[in-house]
Amino acid sequence: DVIETFESASLFFSSVVGFGSITRGLNPFEVITFLNGFYDVIDDLIDQYDCSKVESISDSYLIASGIPRSNGERHASQLCSMALMFLKASSAIHRPDQPSQTIQVKAGIHTGTVVAGIVGSKLPRYCLFGDTVNTASRMQSQSLPGKVQISSETKLMLDVMGGFITEERGPIYIKGKGRLNTFWLNEEME
Amino acid sequence: DVIETFESASLFFSSVVGFGSITRGLNPFEVITFLNGFYDVIDDLIDQYDCSKVESISDSYLIASGIPRSNGERHASQLCSMALMFLKASSAIHRPDQPSQTIQVKAGIHTGTVVAGIVGSKLPRYCLFGDTVNTASRMQSQSLPGKVQISSETKLMLDVMGGFITEERGPIYIKGKGRLNTFWLNEEME
Ligand SMILES: [Mn+2]
Ligand SMILES: [Mn+2]
Repeated sequence: DVIETFESASLFFSSVVGFGSITRGLNPFEVITFLNGFYDVIDDLIDQYDCSKVESISDSYLIASGIPRSNGERHASQLCSMALMFLKASSAIHRPDQPSQTIQVKAGIHTGTVVAGIVGSKLPRYCLFGDTVNTASRMQSQSLPGKVQISSETKLMLDVMGGFITEERGPIYIKGKGRLNTFWLNEEME
Repeated sequence: DVIETFESASLFFSSVVGFGSITRGLNPFEVITFLNGFYDVIDDLIDQYDCSKVESISDSYLIASGIPRSNGERHASQLCSMALMFLKASSAIHRPDQPSQTIQVKAGIHTGTVVAGIVGSKLPRYCLFGDTVNTASRMQSQSLPGKVQISSETKLMLDVMGGFITEERGPIYIKGKGRLNTFWLNEEME
């Protein structure tokens, strides 16, 4: 099995807010149709940036930049550009249970060292490992509807490239890591 | 996208007890090595029964019988035979963090109608949908270390085939379903 370390990469996690209640009254065909429509929109969007889809599990996405090919200092800004379009595109997708309303997504991004490897021989999966994955996942779970929460490591790389407006959220508590200062990714300047 | 309904199938979910604490002190290479070793053992075991691996995500397995090919009345008993060997094989795998100890697995099985479909075009996944999936997942999450919890629907089909010793657990509360009577799968008779 091939295991590779990426010294610097960025990871994006997202989920659809209230997916359980959105799909509670749907039959499986309606759920599959909804997910395929959602994936179609998002997968096309990912193609437009220097990013790659690692996996989508039900309503959750994991998208990387700088993996499986290093891209220098571009990964944080490429992933943040993608993230803002991800929110925008999602907010145009109608709820299958209440078609007059649209879905909302919450997302998080973190930057750091990531180990990637193929796990399993029967149904081989390209998987990411390491502390950066856990922290990126926490940036998502502690985000808010319609928001992208980014870590200070991601913010630092963004600031080197310039072009984004962020807003300090203040410290949040992350299990096993203590208090981390995080930021909201608000917009990309024209 | 092809969507198919299986009127009667059985689903098995499992997880490694305490996987978070087992892997907390490991580096990513050690985690990948552990998972690949675990998957090797389990995937070989699955091959010996009329079952198929749907997915493994980290330490969690989803295994089906009667999907993607219907197998009449065999699915409950085939999956239960597999489940008992899954527990046995797992209990011989050493903890990577404490090699003098072995891992423990908890598992659950439910039987019912399942909808299967390929979701996504970019990284297509064979996914299962419907209430049976949720209930099977709850049989796992409310199981106990070293145990396989089965629903009364699975138990009913097992009893038709015969050959297994089960033990009533009594009712457990499942969100959205109320109280369900469940059973421990204890052993298969020679
Ligand atoms: Mn495309
Ligand atoms: Mn094999």
